[in-house]
Amino acid sequence: MNFSSKLLEDAVAEFAKLPGVGQKTALRLVLHLLNRDKEEVHKFSTAISKLRNEIQFCQTCHNISDQKVCEICSSHKRDHGLICVVEDTRDVMAIENTNQYNGVYHVLGGLISPMDGIGPADLQVDSLVERLKDGTVKEVIFALSATMEGDTTIFYLNKRVKQFAINISTIARGIAFGGELEYVDEITLGRSIVTRVPYENSLS
Amino acid sequence: MNFSSKLLEDAVAEFAKLPGVGQKTALRLVLHLLNRDKEEVHKFSTAISKLRNEIQFCQTCHNISDQKVCEICSSHKRDHGLICVVEDTRDVMAIENTNQYNGVYHVLGGLISPMDGIGPADLQVDSLVERLKDGTVKEVIFALSATMEGDTTIFYLNKRVKQFAINISTIARGIAFGGELEYVDEITLGRSIVTRVPYENSLS
Ligand SMILES: [Zn+2]
Ligand SMILES: [Zn+2]
Repeated sequence: MNFSSKLLEDAVAEFAKLPGVGQKTALRLVLHLLNRDKEEVHKFSTAISKLRNEIQFCQTCHNISDQKVCEICSSHKRDHGLICVVEDTRDVMAIENTNQYNGVYHVLGGLISPMDGIGPADLQVDSLVERLKDGTVKEVIFALSATMEGDTTIFYLNKRVKQFAINISTIARGIAFGGELEYVDEITLGRSIVTRVPYENSLS
Repeated sequence: MNFSSKLLEDAVAEFAKLPGVGQKTALRLVLHLLNRDKEEVHKFSTAISKLRNEIQFCQTCHNISDQKVCEICSSHKRDHGLICVVEDTRDVMAIENTNQYNGVYHVLGGLISPMDGIGPADLQVDSLVERLKDGTVKEVIFALSATMEGDTTIFYLNKRVKQFAINISTIARGIAFGGELEYVDEITLGRSIVTRVPYENSLS
């Protein structure tokens, strides 16, 4: 593309680095911002830099948080004997939205994916094992996407976790194989937590 | 959505204000930025605020520019007797990309759209008329989208411009009715400029 302005070109190049955003879309978004008030654009750019600079992750569950320990982990209304293991914060949000779950979470920060060079050491696995040591936790639910990566991760986690005297379950697969957790509708997702099955039974 | 962090919620809300970006896409983009280096995210947010604060528009053609007069308007290699009237900077870029046009431009900054409350006074119409007064310009080409708004705008501009002894043409309609100029492929767009027709002939 021939840009008439270096400032414009730079802004478009930055937007085009976002996943799923091509050059034309980037240009459309940037021109939209140009038409907005300066204060509005200032709000946009500050919200992003502030998030990146000030973000914290809960020391216990590793979910994105504004405090050292997140609201869920510090709540006395939640069942701390039940841990739901998820890939990222989107999954926490999706499950919270179902209003079907009252336990706590553990955010892995990804899934094992040899293709992408992501191994167990890149994920919050050791800290999960650590949380199980004091005997408070009675059950771990694996709520991971029904993909190859999700299954590989569950297989590995199960090996690490089964040494403890706790129940290990996976959310019910009402989800089509290959389905990504975050796109599942609330009803299906909520039901799949309620009808979760022991991990051993889910192996076919 | 239940956000675990106000910083996250704010950033997602800002992204979701962009056209065509829903809540889920906004969240995906924000989480992507969170995974990037701080410097990278700083570059992203600065590029945008810098653009908005320092952007200029060419005094002659009103295209986005880093100088008071843009490179095209200040070039002696361009034919200043030929003005191509377009909606916005994307159209200038698209036409420049064809390498079929050597005149200069006039960027209206939009199209007349009574539905959206955009009238001639909101566009750079008077300054176009002004540019025609000294007799340098021999031809004006209307290169506007083949939509209701594009046709309305051409109809109005023609009334304002036909008082001058200049040729008035429109780009050839190889473009399907309803087609937006910026999505037209380069070959079709380039040819439609070469085979432009006098405006009077284009009325059917
Ligand atoms: Zn937590
Ligand atoms: Zn100019």
